[in-house]
Amino acid sequence: MKTIEQNFAVPFRYGVYFTENLFAPSNQVLADVLAQDRASGPRKVMFVVDSGVAEAHPQLLEHIHHYTLAHPDALQQVAAPLVLPGGEEAKNSKEHLQAILSSINKFGVCRHSYLIAIGGGAVLDLAGFAAAIAHRGIRHIRVPSTVLSQNDSGVGVKNGINAFGKKNFLGTFAPPFAVINDSNFLLTLEDRDWRSGISEAVKVALIKDAAFYQRIKQDAGKLAQRDMEAMQQLIHRCAELHVEHIGGPDPFELGSSRPLDFGHWAAHKLEQLSKYSLRHGEAVAIGIALDVVYSQLQGLLTEAEQDDVLDLLQELGFELFTPELAQQTPDGQLAVIQGLREFREHLGGELTIMLLRQIGVGEEVHHVDEHLVQQAIALLQKKRQPQPLSQV
Amino acid sequence: MKTIEQNFAVPFRYGVYFTENLFAPSNQVLADVLAQDRASGPRKVMFVVDSGVAEAHPQLLEHIHHYTLAHPDALQQVAAPLVLPGGEEAKNSKEHLQAILSSINKFGVCRHSYLIAIGGGAVLDLAGFAAAIAHRGIRHIRVPSTVLSQNDSGVGVKNGINAFGKKNFLGTFAPPFAVINDSNFLLTLEDRDWRSGISEAVKVALIKDAAFYQRIKQDAGKLAQRDMEAMQQLIHRCAELHVEHIGGPDPFELGSSRPLDFGHWAAHKLEQLSKYSLRHGEAVAIGIALDVVYSQLQGLLTEAEQDDVLDLLQELGFELFTPELAQQTPDGQLAVIQGLREFREHLGGELTIMLLRQIGVGEEVHHVDEHLVQQAIALLQKKRQPQPLSQV
Repeated sequence: MKTIEQNFAVPFRYGVYFTENLFAPSNQVLADVLAQDRASGPRKVMFVVDSGVAEAHPQLLEHIHHYTLAHPDALQQVAAPLVLPGGEEAKNSKEHLQAILSSINKFGVCRHSYLIAIGGGAVLDLAGFAAAIAHRGIRHIRVPSTVLSQNDSGVGVKNGINAFGKKNFLGTFAPPFAVINDSNFLLTLEDRDWRSGISEAVKVALIKDAAFYQRIKQDAGKLAQRDMEAMQQLIHRCAELHVEHIGGPDPFELGSSRPLDFGHWAAHKLEQLSKYSLRHGEAVAIGIALDVVYSQLQGLLTEAEQDDVLDLLQELGFELFTPELAQQTPDGQLAVIQGLREFREHLGGELTIMLLRQIGVGEEVHHVDEHLVQQAIALLQKKRQPQPLSQV
Repeated sequence: MKTIEQNFAVPFRYGVYFTENLFAPSNQVLADVLAQDRASGPRKVMFVVDSGVAEAHPQLLEHIHHYTLAHPDALQQVAAPLVLPGGEEAKNSKEHLQAILSSINKFGVCRHSYLIAIGGGAVLDLAGFAAAIAHRGIRHIRVPSTVLSQNDSGVGVKNGINAFGKKNFLGTFAPPFAVINDSNFLLTLEDRDWRSGISEAVKVALIKDAAFYQRIKQDAGKLAQRDMEAMQQLIHRCAELHVEHIGGPDPFELGSSRPLDFGHWAAHKLEQLSKYSLRHGEAVAIGIALDVVYSQLQGLLTEAEQDDVLDLLQELGFELFTPELAQQTPDGQLAVIQGLREFREHLGGELTIMLLRQIGVGEEVHHVDEHLVQQAIALLQKKRQPQPLSQV
């Protein structure tokens, strides 16, 4: 019998909006975003809030409440916001996923309702996954509260939780309805979190945009000093490059397209080895350092270029080494090398690692030389060792 | 700061193939389907098999094993097939989902590997959900083993499991890599399952294709007598209409598009009320009968048309009534009416129910008159009551 051919394309569209004080009663951004669905009557909305954000902004829940009162035609809350712990650890337990799903069920949140998540990457990943699988997908608006989520994970199309000890083992590709970046949330970040997200900007600049890299270098002092304007510029350009990459030929990575994952194969493993005491961005900075040195050892990058990147990372305040990088498995292998296998398995297909040909230009390779990895690690370890007294 | 606009379309393409004896060593269908990915070397494949199918086809696992031996360049099994219980009940427990995910983890099934599920709609829904969320999506091939799954659910883009007592509360839209319909599996179906899937064909014929409806009427006797050729024709046309509908403007039902769900609002609730002792197709036949009578009571359909449909359903061997249809809640409401609310909530947005304007032409309405529903149920109940003795 004749084969039936199915062939269609699903269009997706969303905006990444920039604002300040999203829940000030006079701020129209959220109301305008919701109005894009052209529905009549207030939308049913459920908020999920990162407990870290709620603590840093003690009036946030009250502001949300007043905002909904000030915009009764735009939205109504189905229940008080669900406050959940943030940080990667939150993605290791199914309990938080269950809490969101249970609220979706209890409060009748439907496919035309909205789940609005406010928080760091972990809470957004978790809430996004719940929104993606409940009723086969509830509309989801992300309000990223960290540099990392505002310039990278939060503006993309992925969500996920960890399982079987593996990062993002469970998840989907599910474009959000909108992303709203509120710079106010950045003011209360710990220094670690302020800095952490900068590594993703360095990453994308290194493989895609040499001018952006120069801009980061130029602003490095300001960024380390928490200059908000420099940070806003950095977030905007990084988010833009991220969004452009996703909008390329294979947004859901169904073929052999790769995510923007320079420096990430080691980073994922380091996070896990550190039991998530390393922030993702901190692990990425170390992963970048490792792959930059490796690129130099492979003869792709000059030593001057290598040092330029390592210096920049240090100027931004990043460590280039962590003991987990040299950790060995019981059989004497480098634990981080295991990460290579897991990285390949998670993405599927042939192993593909991004290296650097020059600053601003990435190059994919399909083989990693373990001896060179060891050399690169040794070099980074040496760099962090205290200088001899005579040189202090 | 300037809003960043994301805008892309994700293309999906898959074939619904028809064959007989899929795992005969000389059958090229599966090997050809796998070759579409243009990878080199054998694909890693994990099979999930419905225990009902494995029992009805005791040599199936052996045939699969020999097939892989006969096609070493096309595929290699990562492990022995995972055999899981079928039937809607299997979708109520998270244990089976966990079993599939655990195997995916244990055997290193990646995004470029294949999960091939063989079974009825429930196993396909379950395995499809696992495939959709592991590593954010593993390639999934469906081998539907029942009439219902070969002509309807199995050829579509949805998967899911039940949660919070609600059908398909968790799931995603995830197009399969391919669907392969093997007519051999139909030979061993129980009569209930053979018949059950016919109701979806009646459904789609009634709302979309009057000529197909006439064809079903013409073949009704053959279909009731398990004529394979008539069944194959029915499956092919039904699957084709299903595939066409999905390929329409809104495959993932992101806007207000509706699935082909005539007769389904009551059916979902009846299944649940019967604790899934009613087959989905049996519940759909009753749901169709209810909405056909309702359409007539509303003045949309003539009595002659109504009786034509009810007669056809009975000729095919379906019941038009089940006690659950008249079941009341503690506060004296019809339990099935609750299903209306759940139906709206699951699909989202405004309540939309498909009725019939004439045979072959559906019409959407947004309000349901509960009194007319009660009248329709009473009429169906009367029809099933034994005829007075004088008429026997």
